[in-house]
Amino acid sequence: MIQRVDYSKVSITGGFWRQKQDLVRDVTVQAVYDRFKDTGRIDAFRCDINSEIKPHIFWDSDVAKWMEGVAYLLREQPDDALQATVEALIDCIEENQGEDGYFNLYYTVVEPEGRYTNRDCHELYCAGHLMEAAVAYYEATGKRRFLDLMCKYADYIERRFKIDRDTAFVTPGHEEIELALVRLYEATGERRYLELSRFFVDERGTRAEGLTDWSESRYHQSHLPAREQFTAEGHAVRAVYFYSAMADLALRLQDEALKTACERLFEDIIRHKMYVTGGVGSSFVGEAFTMPYDLPNLISYTESCAAIGLVFFAQRMLLLTNDAKYADVIERILYNGFLSALSLDGKAFFYCNPLEIIPALHTRDRSAKQKSLTLPQMQRQEVFECSCCPPNIVRFVPSLSGLIYTQDETSLYVHQFMESRATLSIGGQSVTVEQKTNYPTDGRVSIGVTGGAATLRVRIPAYARATYEGKLENGYATFHLMDGDEITLTFDLTPRLTEANPNVFFDAGRCAVERGPVVYCMEAVDNGANLRDIRLCRGAAFEEAWSETYGLPILSVAAFRRKASKDLYAPISDEREAITAHLIPYYAFANRGISEMQVWHLVEGR
Amino acid sequence: MIQRVDYSKVSITGGFWRQKQDLVRDVTVQAVYDRFKDTGRIDAFRCDINSEIKPHIFWDSDVAKWMEGVAYLLREQPDDALQATVEALIDCIEENQGEDGYFNLYYTVVEPEGRYTNRDCHELYCAGHLMEAAVAYYEATGKRRFLDLMCKYADYIERRFKIDRDTAFVTPGHEEIELALVRLYEATGERRYLELSRFFVDERGTRAEGLTDWSESRYHQSHLPAREQFTAEGHAVRAVYFYSAMADLALRLQDEALKTACERLFEDIIRHKMYVTGGVGSSFVGEAFTMPYDLPNLISYTESCAAIGLVFFAQRMLLLTNDAKYADVIERILYNGFLSALSLDGKAFFYCNPLEIIPALHTRDRSAKQKSLTLPQMQRQEVFECSCCPPNIVRFVPSLSGLIYTQDETSLYVHQFMESRATLSIGGQSVTVEQKTNYPTDGRVSIGVTGGAATLRVRIPAYARATYEGKLENGYATFHLMDGDEITLTFDLTPRLTEANPNVFFDAGRCAVERGPVVYCMEAVDNGANLRDIRLCRGAAFEEAWSETYGLPILSVAAFRRKASKDLYAPISDEREAITAHLIPYYAFANRGISEMQVWHLVEGR
Repeated sequence: MIQRVDYSKVSITGGFWRQKQDLVRDVTVQAVYDRFKDTGRIDAFRCDINSEIKPHIFWDSDVAKWMEGVAYLLREQPDDALQATVEALIDCIEENQGEDGYFNLYYTVVEPEGRYTNRDCHELYCAGHLMEAAVAYYEATGKRRFLDLMCKYADYIERRFKIDRDTAFVTPGHEEIELALVRLYEATGERRYLELSRFFVDERGTRAEGLTDWSESRYHQSHLPAREQFTAEGHAVRAVYFYSAMADLALRLQDEALKTACERLFEDIIRHKMYVTGGVGSSFVGEAFTMPYDLPNLISYTESCAAIGLVFFAQRMLLLTNDAKYADVIERILYNGFLSALSLDGKAFFYCNPLEIIPALHTRDRSAKQKSLTLPQMQRQEVFECSCCPPNIVRFVPSLSGLIYTQDETSLYVHQFMESRATLSIGGQSVTVEQKTNYPTDGRVSIGVTGGAATLRVRIPAYARATYEGKLENGYATFHLMDGDEITLTFDLTPRLTEANPNVFFDAGRCAVERGPVVYCMEAVDNGANLRDIRLCRGAAFEEAWSETYGLPILSVAAFRRKASKDLYAPISDEREAITAHLIPYYAFANRGISEMQVWHLVEGR
Repeated sequence: MIQRVDYSKVSITGGFWRQKQDLVRDVTVQAVYDRFKDTGRIDAFRCDINSEIKPHIFWDSDVAKWMEGVAYLLREQPDDALQATVEALIDCIEENQGEDGYFNLYYTVVEPEGRYTNRDCHELYCAGHLMEAAVAYYEATGKRRFLDLMCKYADYIERRFKIDRDTAFVTPGHEEIELALVRLYEATGERRYLELSRFFVDERGTRAEGLTDWSESRYHQSHLPAREQFTAEGHAVRAVYFYSAMADLALRLQDEALKTACERLFEDIIRHKMYVTGGVGSSFVGEAFTMPYDLPNLISYTESCAAIGLVFFAQRMLLLTNDAKYADVIERILYNGFLSALSLDGKAFFYCNPLEIIPALHTRDRSAKQKSLTLPQMQRQEVFECSCCPPNIVRFVPSLSGLIYTQDETSLYVHQFMESRATLSIGGQSVTVEQKTNYPTDGRVSIGVTGGAATLRVRIPAYARATYEGKLENGYATFHLMDGDEITLTFDLTPRLTEANPNVFFDAGRCAVERGPVVYCMEAVDNGANLRDIRLCRGAAFEEAWSETYGLPILSVAAFRRKASKDLYAPISDEREAITAHLIPYYAFANRGISEMQVWHLVEGR
């Protein structure tokens, strides 16, 4: 059986992602904490009912994700100050947790009589994030206090929801606790938590319960029983968290019906509803999936948390299926729709990650009350009123190395390429696996084993698979290595033009530029305004120039612009001027002020 | 000096527009009346304060425009029943007009104490439309009663606004009365009405007055004095009505500053803010002009009334300048953005006239409260809550022949090509001018004069001007005709590909198909779904097939579609299938049920 190779067994030792991990450790973790302190989120854990600042219904989860991120950092490297901050928060939790085990900021301070009356108030969602933080902190420090508090809370939830059934709703409005309970089960060995997770998953979509007025039940995936859900619907973050839990259960309970639903849901996403950046959620309304092929670039929602959640789902599908397509999606998200959320200085964040920006459109409607277009923000911000994304980045980046490998008794699956060292038990031997690579700066990856033999099953990335000459199984090439052996693969990272399915009406007639796993974009700061009219020359070679700032090359390519004209309409003409178009990695857009930006370009000569 | 050739002097005797005039006479005028009767608009003229149905602030104007349209019909052909209906409405007006001359449904029935307290409540707008109806009715029937009532009303308005100055605002929130007063002046010879018009135009934008909360002063063109307005701003209908009045005054008062402002405003519209259909108003928010080159096709507002108003403005500019570009714009609007508003059966109307429809997008956001896209309706309807457009069509179509000619002492300017007969006084002689043409079915136009000699100055349409071999002055070719002479011109109507200015980001990479003055579109009902991916073959010949339904040929042309694919993203490929694309006149879209529709197409081979 395929098993996770936990992040704690693998150290990213250099290269592209080490730099990002350092940035999060050195800057982001403190920046997010400071903003949470400023906004009252930290002090809210004191549950002072006299405080002027009242906690929002999702503040517990914001801080819990930050605590989880700190736990990952502590596991890698001790930090007394950070640990003390977490301990102080745990003190608050311990102090303010009910005798019965209940803990929630909003329902303790603001509406103590309202416990479990409103399905949309994120109580179980917050509980789930606290549980995940507790598991991570326990695994990092060996300290059980937080874990024990959260077990007590989970016990309370089990009693209220599953045994006494005296709550106003049965399943959470925002999924999260389902996957948290699986983690709690794995950390404690207490099967009741797995069963409680199954309870929440099984009950969902079997009854009408507490719908919000602004949407249908599909908004929170309650329109059908889990095993009958085959199309991704509703709020994208809720959806991918739920599907992750479904995959967790499918794996642990050998539930074929759940597995089938997961496979079909994933296929629906990657065949119909995922941006080329790996972002999901096409509509601002409901922050939601919409119909197939509806992938507008200007008004994409593509929430950072949804990108992270889709990685969670894909990683679980890898464990279920051993199919490289899931790791392909993870890679697509990592380098594009996830990483775009973090500014180069590590301090600011995108909630939505648009694929196109036309700044003028943001001021076209002068009215404050109405807008004809609901456009995402053009610049990253340090904190949001609903600030779920920044701490999600804080917990995601330090645990990235958990995405590199999975293993079974005899083989090691190599899914991602990052300069790293792992010490694993393979076939009863302790084997050190080392990746030496500058990927994706260049396409060369060396993987060596010491301490024992191992069969490596190395993912050949989707973009390189068509030209790979060896035999592949589910997208993986197999290498049998003896102690001390090293293999080297080189992937062709020549920039390429990618087109979207003909049914994607918003991308018709246009191509994206990809280099290896990295999607590139144009910004007006490099190319002048009106990117939509630039035609990249098909077949022209891309020139690469190393950029220290981006940790990747920037690209230049021959292109054309039509000549400026006074007429608004004129007969079709071939008058045009040759220009050089400049592209930067998509993830780095909007780091140089407000600028037009575009991912899908016209192409000359087709 | 150039003078109008009034619609009453010119009869459209056959061809494309005769068919539309017959449709309006036979169907539309009654259909609009019936809907107005259904909704209480007609009975509202009884001003019964006990009626359950309360008049809206714009109902007077809806019915007044209908009355104006009937007047034009009566002038052409007596109709006792229609005339009796108008007389009954005039009875109501006479009965309910105040001693002081005031008449307004809403402020008589609903809020009698509120007279002239709210600038946004359309009082002066309604008054203006009643005045226009009264002038038209007087000119058609010779009956003075309605005209006298409206003169009394105008006198009252003059006293309140200009003499006593005791109103809560100085200029109307919705312009219209300015141009109506010029008509009243011309019908009565009473110069005070011209001066009152000037008063309203001069005072506008010189003070802060009664702004609505949802916009700035530019919403109703009150941001600057008229003579300092050089860019088209705000609510498009208000804007073009206002600019029309400015042009009226510029002509009659020889006001060079007003003329300059009008010329610059018109240039701003046709260089930056007009759709290829002649529609204006890019944003739902404020039904307004936005910034230059912002011409979204899916969410265009392009109100039918704004198209009509832009014809009014252009026709006045023709009188001011003798420049064919204004008649070019009129022709563009007539065959496209205006005519699209009327269904082929004459009973239903578009308020907004979109340039693209993707039906799936209308259901993407399931929420009733919020939408990420504000999309125009996909089908014409019989009546609207704000039903300004249907009666505007009723008054516009029967008076169309007034757009064909202007004249000075010795010359007749021929602006539009319609099978028609006119009897005019040219150089002291009564000359009959006859156009024989099937334009724009074909491009042949014969124009003959009998009864005297005349110099004809014939507009060579913009699309034919580049290839015209004779001498042109301001876009006109000059012909000296003796009694009995006839000239024949033939314009090349070969379908052509038109592209938008490179700055129009929403049209980048795409072309429109035009044939003479007519813009064509594709509908899914002929071409299958996903029109955005169809590439018309550049250089391929268009085949024409006569359509009785459209009164114009339909077009077919070689094209390509990419082959269906399962992948959402794939390397750029040349796999494609040859198809034949079918296009119909844009004005006729949405007459065969809900269907995808597109004006801007991809073109293969560029």
